[in-house]
Amino acid sequence: MASGCGVEEVSNKQVILKDYVLSGFPKESDMDVNTSSTIKLMVPEGSNAVLVKNLYLSCDPYMRHCMKKQPIPGSETYIESFKPGSDDMNYEEFDVNAKILMGEKPITGNGVAKVLDSGHPNFKKGDLIWGMTGWEEYSLITATHTLFKIQHTDVPLSYYTGLLGMPGMTAYGGFYEVCSPKKGEHVFISAASGAVGQIVGQFAKLSGCYVVGSAGSKEKASLLIMRVDLLKNKFGFDEAFNYKEEPDLNAALKRYFLEGIDIYFENVGGKMLDAVLPNMRVRGRIAVCGMISQYNLDKPEGVHNLMALVWKRVRIEGILVFDYFHLYPKFLELVLFYLKEGKITYVEDVAEGLESAPAALIGLYTGRNVGKQLVVVARE
Amino acid sequence: MASGCGVEEVSNKQVILKDYVLSGFPKESDMDVNTSSTIKLMVPEGSNAVLVKNLYLSCDPYMRHCMKKQPIPGSETYIESFKPGSDDMNYEEFDVNAKILMGEKPITGNGVAKVLDSGHPNFKKGDLIWGMTGWEEYSLITATHTLFKIQHTDVPLSYYTGLLGMPGMTAYGGFYEVCSPKKGEHVFISAASGAVGQIVGQFAKLSGCYVVGSAGSKEKASLLIMRVDLLKNKFGFDEAFNYKEEPDLNAALKRYFLEGIDIYFENVGGKMLDAVLPNMRVRGRIAVCGMISQYNLDKPEGVHNLMALVWKRVRIEGILVFDYFHLYPKFLELVLFYLKEGKITYVEDVAEGLESAPAALIGLYTGRNVGKQLVVVARE
Repeated sequence: MASGCGVEEVSNKQVILKDYVLSGFPKESDMDVNTSSTIKLMVPEGSNAVLVKNLYLSCDPYMRHCMKKQPIPGSETYIESFKPGSDDMNYEEFDVNAKILMGEKPITGNGVAKVLDSGHPNFKKGDLIWGMTGWEEYSLITATHTLFKIQHTDVPLSYYTGLLGMPGMTAYGGFYEVCSPKKGEHVFISAASGAVGQIVGQFAKLSGCYVVGSAGSKEKASLLIMRVDLLKNKFGFDEAFNYKEEPDLNAALKRYFLEGIDIYFENVGGKMLDAVLPNMRVRGRIAVCGMISQYNLDKPEGVHNLMALVWKRVRIEGILVFDYFHLYPKFLELVLFYLKEGKITYVEDVAEGLESAPAALIGLYTGRNVGKQLVVVARE
Repeated sequence: MASGCGVEEVSNKQVILKDYVLSGFPKESDMDVNTSSTIKLMVPEGSNAVLVKNLYLSCDPYMRHCMKKQPIPGSETYIESFKPGSDDMNYEEFDVNAKILMGEKPITGNGVAKVLDSGHPNFKKGDLIWGMTGWEEYSLITATHTLFKIQHTDVPLSYYTGLLGMPGMTAYGGFYEVCSPKKGEHVFISAASGAVGQIVGQFAKLSGCYVVGSAGSKEKASLLIMRVDLLKNKFGFDEAFNYKEEPDLNAALKRYFLEGIDIYFENVGGKMLDAVLPNMRVRGRIAVCGMISQYNLDKPEGVHNLMALVWKRVRIEGILVFDYFHLYPKFLELVLFYLKEGKITYVEDVAEGLESAPAALIGLYTGRNVGKQLVVVARE
């Protein structure tokens, strides 16, 4: 519970966005690790916030949108821009929680954290949680409705940034609820070694599907080889290919899908979607999770082959994880079972320390990560 | 039943595609009205074909695809190229039905016809049918599985090329089955005065929706005014606009849909789809019936705003009428009821005589027609 005065004020390293990144690829120098900030390790009197020590921070592709000043039209409800250091903050509400938010604000994102103090009846000191937190050592979280209490600690805690957290729920909702897989169907996943793709691929194999994944990178060729190898040998995909080595994506897809694609799990967008469309089978389904290839462009590429939707009566549907949180208990039970039975595995790319967080985040967009990218702030 | 020899051979005017129209807008001169052809008004011995006298022929946007040599990838199963006069035909099968198909072949399309002779047990002389026939005075139809027998003749027979035929079924399947309308939802229809659009709009009004339609034309402004007027005053749309007068489609949509679009019935594609996407509401639905604005382009325009699918969890689905034919009896009962109660109306643009058929068909692509375009070959 919130306690009184005389509490120790400690240093609180933070990752700050220096200024909005309006277009192009974000750079490490767009962020700053601020070491001058401090925090009192208590929840202010009268607040229902929780004060946490951050353990693991999640690097997620959607965060690129938060670096823009204006959210993409349509995303306003879900995506809030980061508050860059250059921004004059001016909160209109002035209750106790709003006051907390004054001052420089770090980047926000999903993470795993330990409760140090709580003004909220659902959380107590010592609880482990995952949900929206700040890119800093300690965070005072007022939006407690975004937090999940971690009940199962006999698995790697970092998995709550991936397999057991938002990416896991995204894969579960998108694949089972939107794609309605049937045994024997042909499934294609782009960015298949990423945080969500690797889970979808394993769900698809567990559903008795034929599964092909693509991976690529603007980085070193060795990373590509590693990814394609991961897909086949670690996650059990039937086939995997490196899209950077395919001058003709359409021909590549035809090679792996002689009879066409029943389910496409879309993480990439642009040219990949255009190549997939004519290769879809009648009554195929496409779940659009994201379009990472488009996030750093001034204008998204045009997709030309949409008439294929008509010829093949294909259904495309966009997914947002928020729609599936009510299924979290069911999801968790299933995935914990698979995990303990050794039927599912998860590959993480772990960056050590808050100082490495900016590089870890921007690495997503050039494909530097192999597996789910996360940052360790502290291990407990 | 098929009878023997000695049957009169009569002149059989035909509309022939002179050569494939690979790109650009088709021209009247791409077709020929051939007056030298003749036909015996009987079904050959041993054939299960039907011989019909064509009454009404339907001009449908999809026919543009049949003028191309190579069907669009994905459309192969549904769209067969017309056989142009210049083409050397070489049928591999050589049964009695195949032999019938030798020789110059007219354009094919939907139509209403009267059976003059039949080798098929389901059809007899005097029956009225609608389905796939030839653009000629008389046709010998071997693909009898595409024919529907007309049971209700107390409505204009020509309606079986539109409201009571393929466009009607397309509107019914696309709107009720794919868009799942709910009372009070906001519906947008492009090419709303066309064969399908006018029906969807009236279905939407009958479902208690707020309905806005767009219409446009490369032709005279007076046609545009007529169309927009039709939409509001004849079909009861809440609002209608001429997209040619809107320099900013996004702004136009925002004007008519302050809270966004729940259902978009897509007939146009390209820029219109791009403008609609960011204006969709959460869990909106888009039924893609066609993309007429794209059919004469060498390469379809790119659609850029597909990330809106994610932010709004929008579902897009392509529709083909073939998927809904099993619902035809249910559909017919509903629409005949609406028609007799005066709750639904239908506007046709009627061209007189086979000679006018080429102009009628190409007029679809410049928007010369007002309402469903059809051709009268004979009235009985």
